[in-house]
Amino acid sequence: MTVVEKKQTAERLSESLAEVQRLIELHHERDERAAAANVLQELEQRLQSLHPADIAYILEALPLDERLLVWERVKSQQDGDILLEVSDAVRETLIESMEPDELVAAARQLDTDELADLAGDLPRQVVYEVMGELDEAEREQLQSALSYPEGSIGALMDFELVKIRADVSCEVVLRYLRRFDELPHQTDKIFVLDAQEVLCGVLPLRSLLVADPEQMVSEVMATEVVSFQPEDEARDAALAFERYDLVSAPVVDERGALIGRLTVDEMVDVMREESDSEVLNLAGLKEEEDLFAPVVDSVKNRWSWLAINLCTAFVASRVIGAFEHSINQLVALAALMPIVAGIGGNSGNQTITMIVRALAMGQMQIGQAWRLWRKELGVSIINGLVWGGAIGLIAWALYGRLSLGLVMLAAMTLNLMLAATMGVLIPSLMQKLGRDPALGSSVLITACTDSGGFFIFLGLATLFLL
Amino acid sequence: MTVVEKKQTAERLSESLAEVQRLIELHHERDERAAAANVLQELEQRLQSLHPADIAYILEALPLDERLLVWERVKSQQDGDILLEVSDAVRETLIESMEPDELVAAARQLDTDELADLAGDLPRQVVYEVMGELDEAEREQLQSALSYPEGSIGALMDFELVKIRADVSCEVVLRYLRRFDELPHQTDKIFVLDAQEVLCGVLPLRSLLVADPEQMVSEVMATEVVSFQPEDEARDAALAFERYDLVSAPVVDERGALIGRLTVDEMVDVMREESDSEVLNLAGLKEEEDLFAPVVDSVKNRWSWLAINLCTAFVASRVIGAFEHSINQLVALAALMPIVAGIGGNSGNQTITMIVRALAMGQMQIGQAWRLWRKELGVSIINGLVWGGAIGLIAWALYGRLSLGLVMLAAMTLNLMLAATMGVLIPSLMQKLGRDPALGSSVLITACTDSGGFFIFLGLATLFLL
Repeated sequence: MTVVEKKQTAERLSESLAEVQRLIELHHERDERAAAANVLQELEQRLQSLHPADIAYILEALPLDERLLVWERVKSQQDGDILLEVSDAVRETLIESMEPDELVAAARQLDTDELADLAGDLPRQVVYEVMGELDEAEREQLQSALSYPEGSIGALMDFELVKIRADVSCEVVLRYLRRFDELPHQTDKIFVLDAQEVLCGVLPLRSLLVADPEQMVSEVMATEVVSFQPEDEARDAALAFERYDLVSAPVVDERGALIGRLTVDEMVDVMREESDSEVLNLAGLKEEEDLFAPVVDSVKNRWSWLAINLCTAFVASRVIGAFEHSINQLVALAALMPIVAGIGGNSGNQTITMIVRALAMGQMQIGQAWRLWRKELGVSIINGLVWGGAIGLIAWALYGRLSLGLVMLAAMTLNLMLAATMGVLIPSLMQKLGRDPALGSSVLITACTDSGGFFIFLGLATLFLL
Repeated sequence: MTVVEKKQTAERLSESLAEVQRLIELHHERDERAAAANVLQELEQRLQSLHPADIAYILEALPLDERLLVWERVKSQQDGDILLEVSDAVRETLIESMEPDELVAAARQLDTDELADLAGDLPRQVVYEVMGELDEAEREQLQSALSYPEGSIGALMDFELVKIRADVSCEVVLRYLRRFDELPHQTDKIFVLDAQEVLCGVLPLRSLLVADPEQMVSEVMATEVVSFQPEDEARDAALAFERYDLVSAPVVDERGALIGRLTVDEMVDVMREESDSEVLNLAGLKEEEDLFAPVVDSVKNRWSWLAINLCTAFVASRVIGAFEHSINQLVALAALMPIVAGIGGNSGNQTITMIVRALAMGQMQIGQAWRLWRKELGVSIINGLVWGGAIGLIAWALYGRLSLGLVMLAAMTLNLMLAATMGVLIPSLMQKLGRDPALGSSVLITACTDSGGFFIFLGLATLFLL
């Protein structure tokens, strides 16, 4: 009886990581050469039992020097697959450590679509050398994959297709399939083409397997097919995979000829990248960072958002500067103003997140902005009266001036209304201008509610309190 | 020649939505009864051609009254599937509009695992009635699925399994499969069990199809199987699906007996929910909101984070209050202090996002916190000197006091260092205490950098400038 692995969850993976770290430490401690070599051999064995994706995970979790030590041990076997799995930041460090001939060897193991993914990160010399070894069909595939921009379906499709004609029996198809050494990964359907190579249907394996062998493919195949064109956006395809529970789907050109296919594993990666960049952008990070990147690299990655933030903070500071005279007369204003700005920022971020998501999922049409604005305004007025009232009472109690509390109430309500307005307006405008409504939305709304909040509060105070 | 649908992307879907909206408007405009009924019929036809997931999408994008109008037209056919597809918030509105007998009819269409998903939202009476109609095996499955907590693998697995023995030939398997009307959706492998129902391998369809029919299953099957246990967390399973490019995977109990399976479409939904709740939490929203929810519902959803934000803003306000005397003497402090607090918040959010993500992906061990802290400190010192220097110069130019510029430089550097420290410390502590490090991380770090920033800046100013 063979043994089945019971579990391959996060727990197990971090055990592997801990084991690798223990071995590396052991290696560093051994002064004696032979003993150190022994440990390295154990490490190598340990690594050999792991899936390329697991090794990629371990490489990501190690600081640079330890990462390269591990990479030395594994790169001769599965380096191509591992390079595909690691993040861009870590891939760079690995490729830097490799000799050109090692890179050529790694690239040779890859399919053309995988090679296309990696080509941008490899030295040009290496790409040319590997390209020279491809046959004509492969070279065409590679060039086609390279010709589509990042983020398009064309850049993600692969070319491992099983194609059949509609006018054969299922029996013939089964016999045809048996001639393969193996079917391409993630094959859940076979593509049915007519004489002009135009896609006329798909034959899901689950239909093929239950069909009577005598039946013709044309009777069994599905003709309602979700298909894509290479120029379309990958994120739209990922949404379609999610919506229709697809495992693979054909990519066709304008006349319907089959040119490639998409698989769910690629789409899962697209979804992951989309949501990652959403979170990273919200936090003001340009892209995924290598956790152990040199300080300089991290500074570069975080630079641009900090600079933007600083500019908006400076504007807010000048707004306050314009009211220095008022603050001088009533210093309580300085203590209370961050509350007005803060709650506006929080509430505005809530609104803008809702709207950006609805726009991204295509659930909100620009025509509905008016309706949603009224709703958000309603929410903000309620929140303003409740929270503004509470803080107004506290301000009254603290500083003993009812009028100060009333100004606080009014300013908070008005700033929340501003937040609601800008929260609907900014993403709608961005969308209308053809920009990505998510990018920088958090920074923009906070800029509005900070400067706006200071202006409203200090302005009202100047009018009514001084 | 049958026609193949060429495209089913976002564009197409929003066309359907626009068409539905046009028909609804037309319906509202028609005073005459017969004409209105005609339009409704057209609407119904239009809807019938759509996939349940597409109808779900349209329902999400419509305001409540229009949503219920559409729901009336579709609910008799695919209501069960549609209810599964819509978000929790929208599902509630749909279920509210249905009679108990309609709900029973809808629930009857579902598999036991789908029924389990929906059970929490259905009136108890309806669940009992449907349960009474299940056979014993189904009832057991339902109870088992309901017994696992939300977010566990047990709550997500389904029971549509194709099981075979290892000691038969592939020919026999092929014949056995032909007796099915159809194979379960997302079937990419068949589960191989021994006499004790213990999983001893899986037979991928892609291996079965290329195998010699004479070969025994035991020779063809894969014995290294990624399998899960029902108590494990769904998010770990989703990561494993992503890492190993799985389409389906077995769920087994402690002794290895097969009890269910996971499929990639469920895992994609888990990934989506995970990343959604990450973004929503960052923005201070408790959960996904129905875009057209009544104002009161929205207020409730946003209430808790606003309250927390208000408390932290109030603390920051009291920190400033403690320095009112200093501000009174040098009012420029009031204008400059938000810059110090703001850049600290931005930088702290960058750090904490990095750390939270690394912890969530299992790429950071608590033991590395020390090392990462030193790195983040390095980043913050560089940023502090650069940006603090720039703003210090501007402050010097604006207010004509070199010492004010120097205090600005020092305060910004110190606050960035505080941000880096708390950005590493907070999530590491949360993780050590067994809490979710993501929850509230943004609010906590901003609270630290606001109050801390005001304290550092006003404290330094009080010491050196007054």
